[in-house]
Amino acid sequence: MGKKIGVVLSGCGVFDGSEIHEAVLTLLYLDKKGAEVVMMAPNIEQMHVINHLKGEVSEGERRNVLVESARIARGNIKDIKDVSVNDIDALVFPGGFGAAKNLTTFAVDGANCQINEDVKRLVKDVIKAKKPLVAICIAPVLVAKALEGTNIKTSLTIGTDEGVAGAINSLGANHVSCPVKEAVVDKENKIVTTPAYMLGQRISEVAAGIEKTIDELFKLL
Amino acid sequence: MGKKIGVVLSGCGVFDGSEIHEAVLTLLYLDKKGAEVVMMAPNIEQMHVINHLKGEVSEGERRNVLVESARIARGNIKDIKDVSVNDIDALVFPGGFGAAKNLTTFAVDGANCQINEDVKRLVKDVIKAKKPLVAICIAPVLVAKALEGTNIKTSLTIGTDEGVAGAINSLGANHVSCPVKEAVVDKENKIVTTPAYMLGQRISEVAAGIEKTIDELFKLL
Repeated sequence: MGKKIGVVLSGCGVFDGSEIHEAVLTLLYLDKKGAEVVMMAPNIEQMHVINHLKGEVSEGERRNVLVESARIARGNIKDIKDVSVNDIDALVFPGGFGAAKNLTTFAVDGANCQINEDVKRLVKDVIKAKKPLVAICIAPVLVAKALEGTNIKTSLTIGTDEGVAGAINSLGANHVSCPVKEAVVDKENKIVTTPAYMLGQRISEVAAGIEKTIDELFKLL
Repeated sequence: MGKKIGVVLSGCGVFDGSEIHEAVLTLLYLDKKGAEVVMMAPNIEQMHVINHLKGEVSEGERRNVLVESARIARGNIKDIKDVSVNDIDALVFPGGFGAAKNLTTFAVDGANCQINEDVKRLVKDVIKAKKPLVAICIAPVLVAKALEGTNIKTSLTIGTDEGVAGAINSLGANHVSCPVKEAVVDKENKIVTTPAYMLGQRISEVAAGIEKTIDELFKLL
Protein backbone atom coordinates (compact mmCIF):
# COMPACT_ATOMS: atom_id res chain seq x y z
CA MET A 1 0.00 0.00 0.00
CA GLY A 2 1.35 3.44 -0.96
CA LYS A 3 1.28 6.40 1.37
CA LYS A 4 -1.96 8.42 1.28
CA ILE A 5 -1.08 11.96 0.27
CA GLY A 6 -3.69 14.72 0.36
CA VAL A 7 -3.47 17.32 -2.43
CA VAL A 8 -5.48 20.51 -1.93
CA LEU A 9 -6.57 22.26 -5.13
CA SER A 10 -8.00 25.78 -5.41
CA GLY A 11 -9.58 25.85 -8.90
CA CYS A 12 -8.12 25.29 -12.37
CA GLY A 13 -5.93 28.03 -13.84
CA VAL A 14 -2.96 30.07 -12.63
CA PHE A 15 -4.75 33.43 -12.35
CA ASP A 16 -7.90 32.36 -10.43
CA GLY A 17 -7.21 28.79 -9.25
CA SER A 18 -4.53 26.13 -8.95
CA GLU A 19 -1.49 26.58 -11.18
CA ILE A 20 -2.17 23.71 -13.58
CA HIS A 21 1.45 22.74 -14.33
CA GLU A 22 2.37 22.69 -10.63
CA ALA A 23 -0.68 20.59 -9.77
CA VAL A 24 -0.05 18.03 -12.54
CA LEU A 25 3.69 17.80 -11.77
CA THR A 26 2.81 17.21 -8.10
CA LEU A 27 0.52 14.34 -9.14
CA LEU A 28 3.22 12.93 -11.45
CA TYR A 29 6.00 12.83 -8.85
CA LEU A 30 3.65 11.51 -6.13
CA ASP A 31 2.51 8.72 -8.45
CA LYS A 32 6.12 7.84 -9.27
CA LYS A 33 6.59 7.28 -5.50
CA GLY A 34 3.62 4.89 -5.51
CA ALA A 35 1.49 7.29 -3.47
CA GLU A 36 -2.28 7.02 -3.23
CA VAL A 37 -3.38 10.60 -3.87
CA VAL A 38 -6.45 12.06 -2.10
CA MET A 39 -7.45 15.18 -4.02
CA MET A 40 -9.66 17.74 -2.33
CA ALA A 41 -10.88 21.35 -2.59
CA PRO A 42 -13.35 23.58 -0.76
CA ASN A 43 -16.91 23.63 -2.09
CA ILE A 44 -17.05 27.44 -2.35
CA GLU A 45 -17.38 30.06 -5.05
CA GLN A 46 -14.15 31.40 -6.61
CA MET A 47 -13.22 35.00 -5.74
CA HIS A 48 -13.67 35.72 -9.45
CA VAL A 49 -13.11 34.23 -12.91
CA ILE A 50 -10.13 35.46 -14.95
CA ASN A 51 -10.19 35.21 -18.75
CA HIS A 52 -6.70 33.70 -19.13
CA LEU A 53 -6.43 34.82 -22.76
CA LYS A 54 -6.97 38.51 -21.98
CA GLY A 55 -5.74 38.51 -18.37
CA GLU A 56 -8.92 40.30 -17.29
CA VAL A 57 -11.77 39.58 -14.90
CA SER A 58 -14.66 37.92 -16.73
CA GLU A 59 -17.47 40.10 -15.40
CA GLY A 60 -20.63 38.29 -14.30
CA GLU A 61 -19.12 34.81 -14.58
CA ARG A 62 -19.13 32.58 -11.50
CA ARG A 63 -17.35 29.27 -10.92
CA ASN A 64 -17.06 26.87 -7.98
CA VAL A 65 -13.61 25.93 -6.63
CA LEU A 66 -14.42 22.22 -6.12
CA VAL A 67 -16.11 21.85 -9.53
CA GLU A 68 -13.21 23.51 -11.40
CA SER A 69 -10.57 21.62 -9.38
CA ALA A 70 -12.30 18.41 -10.54
CA ARG A 71 -10.94 19.17 -14.04
CA ILE A 72 -7.37 18.63 -12.83
CA ALA A 73 -8.50 15.64 -10.75
CA ARG A 74 -10.39 14.00 -13.67
CA GLY A 75 -13.44 13.90 -11.40
CA ASN A 76 -11.71 12.05 -8.54
CA ILE A 77 -11.93 14.71 -5.80
CA LYS A 78 -13.48 15.27 -2.36
CA ASP A 79 -14.90 18.24 -0.50
CA ILE A 80 -12.13 19.23 1.94
CA LYS A 81 -14.83 19.42 4.65
CA ASP A 82 -15.04 15.62 4.52
CA VAL A 83 -11.29 15.00 4.94
CA SER A 84 -9.69 14.50 8.36
CA VAL A 85 -6.00 14.37 9.29
CA ASN A 86 -6.55 10.67 10.00
CA ASP A 87 -7.31 10.03 6.31
CA ILE A 88 -3.85 11.10 5.10
CA ASP A 89 -0.12 10.59 5.78
CA ALA A 90 0.89 14.00 4.40
CA LEU A 91 -0.63 17.10 2.80
CA VAL A 92 0.44 19.05 -0.33
CA PHE A 93 -0.65 22.49 -1.56
CA PRO A 94 0.24 23.32 -5.20
CA GLY A 95 0.34 27.04 -5.99
CA GLY A 96 -1.50 29.42 -8.28
CA PHE A 97 -3.50 32.53 -7.38
CA GLY A 98 -6.27 30.24 -6.10
CA ALA A 99 -4.19 29.78 -2.93
CA ALA A 100 -4.20 33.57 -2.47
CA LYS A 101 -7.74 34.25 -3.72
CA ASN A 102 -9.86 31.21 -2.78
CA LEU A 103 -8.07 29.37 0.05
CA THR A 104 -7.07 32.71 1.59
CA THR A 105 -7.68 36.35 0.66
CA PHE A 106 -3.92 37.08 0.63
CA ALA A 107 -3.99 38.55 -2.91
CA VAL A 108 -6.35 41.27 -1.69
CA ASP A 109 -5.58 41.63 2.03
CA GLY A 110 -1.92 40.58 2.41
CA ALA A 111 -0.95 39.51 5.94
CA ASN A 112 -4.38 40.62 7.20
CA CYS A 113 -6.07 38.01 5.01
CA GLN A 114 -8.82 35.57 5.90
CA ILE A 115 -8.15 31.84 5.56
CA ASN A 116 -10.67 29.12 4.71
CA GLU A 117 -11.60 27.34 7.96
CA ASP A 118 -11.14 23.81 6.60
CA VAL A 119 -7.75 24.69 5.13
CA LYS A 120 -6.69 26.13 8.47
CA ARG A 121 -7.99 23.09 10.38
CA LEU A 122 -6.19 20.60 8.15
CA VAL A 123 -2.86 22.52 8.14
CA LYS A 124 -2.88 22.78 11.95
CA ASP A 125 -3.96 19.16 12.46
CA VAL A 126 -1.31 17.82 10.06
CA ILE A 127 1.47 19.80 11.77
CA LYS A 128 0.23 18.85 15.26
CA ALA A 129 0.18 15.18 14.19
CA LYS A 130 3.83 15.54 13.03
CA LYS A 131 2.85 14.52 9.50
CA PRO A 132 4.72 16.22 6.62
CA LEU A 133 3.28 19.21 4.78
CA VAL A 134 4.33 20.62 1.38
CA ALA A 135 3.52 24.09 0.03
CA ILE A 136 4.49 25.18 -3.49
CA CYS A 137 4.81 28.65 -5.12
CA ILE A 138 2.59 31.16 -3.25
CA ALA A 139 0.95 28.47 -1.04
CA PRO A 140 3.46 28.95 1.84
CA VAL A 141 1.53 32.13 2.74
CA LEU A 142 -1.45 30.02 3.76
CA VAL A 143 0.78 27.88 5.99
CA ALA A 144 2.14 31.02 7.67
CA LYS A 145 -1.41 32.35 8.09
CA ALA A 146 -2.71 29.07 9.54
CA LEU A 147 0.13 29.04 12.10
CA GLU A 148 -0.15 32.77 12.99
CA GLY A 149 -0.39 33.24 16.75
CA THR A 150 0.74 29.68 17.56
CA ASN A 151 4.13 28.87 19.11
CA ILE A 152 5.21 27.05 15.93
CA LYS A 153 7.99 28.98 14.18
CA THR A 154 8.56 27.56 10.71
CA SER A 155 10.98 28.36 7.88
CA LEU A 156 9.38 28.77 4.45
CA THR A 157 10.25 29.94 0.94
CA ILE A 158 8.32 31.60 -1.85
CA GLY A 159 11.56 32.30 -3.76
CA THR A 160 12.87 35.85 -3.52
CA ASP A 161 9.86 38.24 -3.71
CA GLU A 162 10.50 40.78 -0.95
CA GLY A 163 6.90 41.87 -0.50
CA VAL A 164 5.54 38.37 0.02
CA ALA A 165 8.60 37.39 2.09
CA GLY A 166 7.94 40.38 4.38
CA ALA A 167 4.30 39.37 4.81
CA ILE A 168 5.36 35.82 5.73
CA ASN A 169 7.76 37.19 8.34
CA SER A 170 5.07 39.50 9.74
CA LEU A 171 2.83 36.45 10.26
CA GLY A 172 5.51 34.94 12.52
CA ALA A 173 7.23 32.57 10.09
CA ASN A 174 10.80 32.88 8.83
CA HIS A 175 11.23 33.43 5.09
CA VAL A 176 14.31 31.87 3.45
CA SER A 177 15.34 32.71 -0.15
CA CYS A 178 15.60 29.69 -2.44
CA PRO A 179 16.26 29.06 -6.17
CA VAL A 180 13.60 27.45 -8.37
CA LYS A 181 15.16 23.99 -8.62
CA GLU A 182 15.62 23.68 -4.85
CA ALA A 183 13.42 23.26 -1.77
CA VAL A 184 13.54 24.53 1.81
CA VAL A 185 13.08 21.78 4.41
CA ASP A 186 11.97 22.65 7.95
CA LYS A 187 12.86 19.28 9.53
CA GLU A 188 11.51 20.10 12.98
CA ASN A 189 8.01 20.92 11.72
CA LYS A 190 8.22 18.63 8.67
CA ILE A 191 7.35 21.41 6.21
CA VAL A 192 8.84 21.49 2.67
CA THR A 193 8.45 24.50 0.33
CA THR A 194 9.65 25.39 -3.18
CA PRO A 195 9.27 28.58 -5.30
CA ALA A 196 8.01 26.96 -8.56
CA TYR A 197 6.42 29.67 -10.78
CA MET A 198 7.10 32.40 -8.17
CA LEU A 199 10.56 32.25 -9.83
CA GLY A 200 10.40 29.71 -12.66
CA GLN A 201 10.47 30.73 -16.32
CA ARG A 202 10.23 27.24 -17.81
CA ILE A 203 8.14 24.20 -16.90
CA SER A 204 11.25 21.97 -16.75
CA GLU A 205 12.84 24.01 -13.96
CA VAL A 206 9.55 24.13 -12.03
CA ALA A 207 9.39 20.33 -12.47
CA ALA A 208 12.92 19.95 -11.06
CA GLY A 209 11.94 21.91 -7.93
CA ILE A 210 8.72 19.96 -7.41
CA GLU A 211 10.46 16.60 -7.95
CA LYS A 212 13.04 17.57 -5.32
CA THR A 213 10.25 18.69 -2.98
CA ILE A 214 8.40 15.37 -3.28
CA ASP A 215 11.69 13.53 -2.68
CA GLU A 216 12.19 15.57 0.50
CA LEU A 217 8.58 14.86 1.54
CA PHE A 218 9.17 11.12 1.25
CA LYS A 219 12.34 11.35 3.36
CA LEU A 220 10.14 12.78 6.13
CA LEU A 221 7.50 10.03 5.95
CA MET B 1 17.61 28.03 -30.91
CA GLY B 2 15.30 25.12 -30.04
CA LYS B 3 12.89 23.58 -32.52
CA LYS B 4 9.50 25.34 -32.78
CA ILE B 5 6.84 22.83 -31.85
CA GLY B 6 3.15 23.66 -32.27
CA VAL B 7 0.81 22.28 -29.59
CA VAL B 8 -2.91 22.37 -30.39
CA LEU B 9 -5.21 22.56 -27.36
CA SER B 10 -8.98 22.01 -27.34
CA GLY B 11 -10.14 23.47 -24.02
CA CYS B 12 -9.19 22.67 -20.42
CA GLY B 13 -10.54 19.45 -18.91
CA VAL B 14 -10.70 15.80 -19.97
CA PHE B 15 -14.48 15.63 -20.52
CA ASP B 16 -14.99 18.77 -22.65
CA GLY B 17 -11.49 19.96 -23.62
CA SER B 18 -7.81 19.01 -23.58
CA GLU B 19 -6.85 16.26 -21.14
CA ILE B 20 -4.92 18.41 -18.67
CA HIS B 21 -2.31 15.83 -17.59
CA GLU B 22 -1.53 14.90 -21.20
CA ALA B 23 -1.18 18.56 -22.20
CA VAL B 24 1.12 19.44 -19.28
CA LEU B 25 3.26 16.31 -19.74
CA THR B 26 3.61 17.20 -23.43
CA LEU B 27 4.84 20.67 -22.45
CA LEU B 28 7.24 19.18 -19.88
CA TYR B 29 8.93 16.72 -22.25
CA LEU B 30 9.08 19.29 -25.08
CA ASP B 31 10.74 21.78 -22.73
CA LYS B 32 13.25 19.16 -21.59
CA LYS B 33 14.26 18.88 -25.28
CA GLY B 34 14.82 22.65 -25.42
CA ALA B 35 11.84 23.18 -27.71
CA GLU B 36 10.19 26.54 -28.23
CA VAL B 37 6.50 25.70 -27.84
CA VAL B 38 3.85 27.51 -29.91
CA MET B 39 0.51 26.88 -28.23
CA MET B 40 -2.68 27.39 -30.20
CA ALA B 41 -6.41 26.61 -30.20
CA PRO B 42 -9.43 27.52 -32.31
CA ASN B 43 -11.41 30.61 -31.28
CA ILE B 44 -14.76 28.79 -31.20
CA GLU B 45 -17.39 27.85 -28.63
CA GLN B 46 -17.02 24.47 -26.89
CA MET B 47 -19.57 21.79 -27.86
CA HIS B 48 -20.71 21.99 -24.23
CA VAL B 49 -19.44 22.41 -20.67
CA ILE B 50 -19.15 19.31 -18.46
CA ASN B 51 -19.28 19.66 -14.68
CA HIS B 52 -16.23 17.46 -13.96
CA LEU B 53 -17.34 16.82 -10.35
CA LYS B 54 -20.73 15.36 -11.34
CA GLY B 55 -19.82 14.14 -14.83
CA GLU B 56 -22.87 15.90 -16.25
CA VAL B 57 -23.50 18.60 -18.82
CA SER B 58 -23.69 22.03 -17.16
CA GLU B 59 -26.88 23.26 -18.82
CA GLY B 60 -26.85 26.85 -20.05
CA GLU B 61 -23.11 27.34 -19.50
CA ARG B 62 -20.95 28.36 -22.48
CA ARG B 63 -17.16 28.50 -22.76
CA ASN B 64 -14.72 29.34 -25.56
CA VAL B 65 -12.05 26.80 -26.59
CA LEU B 66 -9.24 29.37 -26.99
CA VAL B 67 -10.05 31.15 -23.71
CA GLU B 68 -10.16 27.91 -21.70
CA SER B 69 -7.04 26.52 -23.42
CA ALA B 70 -5.25 29.68 -22.26
CA ARG B 71 -5.49 28.29 -18.69
CA ILE B 72 -3.13 25.44 -19.59
CA ALA B 73 -0.96 27.85 -21.63
CA ARG B 74 -0.74 30.43 -18.79
CA GLY B 75 -2.02 33.02 -21.30
CA ASN B 76 0.67 32.34 -23.93
CA ILE B 77 -1.49 31.05 -26.79
CA LYS B 78 -2.49 31.94 -30.36
CA ASP B 79 -5.61 31.57 -32.46
CA ILE B 80 -4.87 28.57 -34.71
CA LYS B 81 -6.18 30.68 -37.63
CA ASP B 82 -3.04 32.79 -37.34
CA VAL B 83 -0.58 29.86 -37.44
CA SER B 84 0.95 28.58 -40.69
CA VAL B 85 2.98 25.44 -41.30
CA ASN B 86 5.94 27.77 -41.91
CA ASP B 87 5.80 28.90 -38.27
CA ILE B 88 6.55 25.44 -36.84
CA ASP B 89 8.92 22.47 -37.19
CA ALA B 90 6.39 19.91 -35.91
CA LEU B 91 2.83 19.73 -34.56
CA VAL B 92 1.46 17.96 -31.46
CA PHE B 93 -2.15 17.19 -30.47
CA PRO B 94 -2.69 16.17 -26.82
CA GLY B 95 -5.90 14.22 -26.20
CA GLY B 96 -9.05 14.69 -24.16
CA PHE B 97 -12.66 14.78 -25.35
CA GLY B 98 -12.02 18.27 -26.75
CA ALA B 99 -10.31 16.58 -29.73
CA ALA B 100 -13.53 14.64 -30.35
CA LYS B 101 -16.01 17.39 -29.42
CA ASN B 102 -14.39 20.71 -30.37
CA LEU B 103 -11.67 19.99 -32.97
CA THR B 104 -13.92 17.36 -34.58
CA THR B 105 -17.44 16.07 -33.86
CA PHE B 106 -16.16 12.47 -33.56
CA ALA B 107 -17.73 11.92 -30.10
CA VAL B 108 -21.17 12.52 -31.62
CA ASP B 109 -20.80 11.52 -35.28
CA GLY B 110 -18.02 8.88 -35.34
CA ALA B 111 -16.31 8.44 -38.73
CA ASN B 112 -18.91 10.76 -40.31
CA CYS B 113 -17.70 13.63 -38.13
CA GLN B 114 -16.92 17.20 -39.12
CA ILE B 115 -13.41 18.57 -38.55
CA ASN B 116 -12.40 22.14 -37.80
CA GLU B 117 -11.09 23.71 -41.03
CA ASP B 118 -7.93 25.17 -39.48
CA VAL B 119 -7.08 21.88 -37.77
CA LYS B 120 -7.54 20.07 -41.09
CA ARG B 121 -5.42 22.66 -42.95
CA LEU B 122 -2.54 22.48 -40.49
CA VAL B 123 -2.51 18.64 -40.30
CA LYS B 124 -2.45 18.35 -44.09
CA ASP B 125 0.14 21.10 -44.54
CA VAL B 126 2.46 19.62 -41.87
CA ILE B 127 2.30 16.14 -43.44
CA LYS B 128 2.76 17.52 -46.97
CA ALA B 129 5.81 19.47 -45.74
CA LYS B 130 7.24 16.21 -44.31
CA LYS B 131 7.34 17.74 -40.84
CA PRO B 132 6.60 15.39 -37.91
CA LEU B 133 3.15 15.20 -36.32
CA VAL B 134 2.21 13.72 -32.92
CA ALA B 135 -1.29 12.72 -31.78
CA ILE B 136 -2.01 11.50 -28.26
CA CYS B 137 -4.96 9.53 -26.77
CA ILE B 138 -8.10 10.08 -28.92
CA ALA B 139 -6.44 12.75 -31.13
CA PRO B 140 -5.35 10.23 -33.83
CA VAL B 141 -8.99 10.21 -35.01
CA LEU B 142 -8.59 13.81 -36.17
CA VAL B 143 -5.46 12.89 -38.12
CA ALA B 144 -7.32 10.04 -39.84
CA LYS B 145 -10.23 12.39 -40.58
CA ALA B 146 -7.96 15.11 -41.99
CA LEU B 147 -6.29 12.56 -44.31
CA GLU B 148 -9.58 10.87 -45.39
CA GLY B 149 -9.79 10.70 -49.18
CA THR B 150 -6.10 11.48 -49.72
CA ASN B 151 -3.57 8.92 -50.96
CA ILE B 152 -1.71 9.04 -47.64
CA LYS B 153 -2.11 5.75 -45.77
CA THR B 154 -0.88 6.13 -42.20
CA SER B 155 -0.58 3.78 -39.22
CA LEU B 156 -1.98 5.10 -35.95
CA THR B 157 -2.85 3.92 -32.45
CA ILE B 158 -5.48 4.87 -29.89
CA GLY B 159 -4.59 1.81 -27.77
CA THR B 160 -6.96 -1.14 -28.08
CA ASP B 161 -10.54 0.21 -28.23
CA GLU B 162 -12.19 -1.76 -31.05
CA GLY B 163 -14.91 0.77 -31.82
CA VAL B 164 -12.55 3.70 -32.29
CA ALA B 165 -9.99 1.48 -34.08
CA GLY B 166 -12.71 0.42 -36.53
CA ALA B 167 -13.66 4.04 -37.20
CA ILE B 168 -9.98 4.91 -37.86
CA ASN B 169 -9.73 2.03 -40.34
CA SER B 170 -12.97 3.09 -42.04
CA LEU B 171 -11.44 6.55 -42.60
CA GLY B 172 -8.61 4.92 -44.58
CA ALA B 173 -5.89 4.76 -41.92
CA ASN B 174 -4.46 1.59 -40.38
CA HIS B 175 -5.02 1.11 -36.66
CA VAL B 176 -2.25 -0.67 -34.71
CA SER B 177 -2.73 -1.83 -31.10
CA CYS B 178 -0.19 -0.39 -28.64
CA PRO B 179 0.38 -0.49 -24.85
CA VAL B 180 0.25 2.71 -22.78
CA LYS B 181 4.01 3.14 -22.25
CA GLU B 182 4.81 2.74 -25.96
CA ALA B 183 4.29 4.72 -29.18
CA VAL B 184 3.53 3.81 -32.79
CA VAL B 185 5.87 5.48 -35.31
CA ASP B 186 4.86 5.83 -38.97
CA LYS B 187 8.31 6.70 -40.30
CA GLU B 188 7.19 7.29 -43.88
CA ASN B 189 4.63 9.95 -42.95
CA LYS B 190 6.47 11.07 -39.76
CA ILE B 191 3.44 10.52 -37.52
CA VAL B 192 3.84 9.36 -33.89
CA THR B 193 0.87 8.27 -31.73
CA THR B 194 0.44 6.93 -28.16
CA PRO B 195 -2.66 5.73 -26.24
CA ALA B 196 -2.18 7.79 -23.02
CA TYR B 197 -5.48 7.87 -21.06
CA MET B 198 -7.26 5.78 -23.72
CA LEU B 199 -5.55 2.95 -21.80
CA GLY B 200 -3.66 4.49 -18.88
CA GLN B 201 -4.80 4.10 -15.28
CA ARG B 202 -2.03 6.16 -13.66
CA ILE B 203 -0.40 9.46 -14.58
CA SER B 204 3.10 7.91 -14.37
CA GLU B 205 2.36 5.38 -17.13
CA VAL B 206 0.77 8.06 -19.31
CA ALA B 207 3.91 10.15 -18.70
CA ALA B 208 6.13 7.24 -19.83
CA GLY B 209 4.21 6.94 -23.11
CA ILE B 210 4.29 10.68 -23.78
CA GLU B 211 8.01 10.92 -22.95
CA LYS B 212 8.70 8.09 -25.41
CA THR B 213 6.52 9.82 -28.02
CA ILE B 214 8.42 13.10 -27.72
CA ASP B 215 11.70 11.17 -27.97
CA GLU B 216 10.45 9.58 -31.21
CA LEU B 217 9.32 13.00 -32.48
CA PHE B 218 12.82 14.41 -31.98
CA LYS B 219 14.38 11.48 -33.84
CA LEU B 220 12.26 12.53 -36.84
CA LEU B 221 13.28 16.20 -36.73
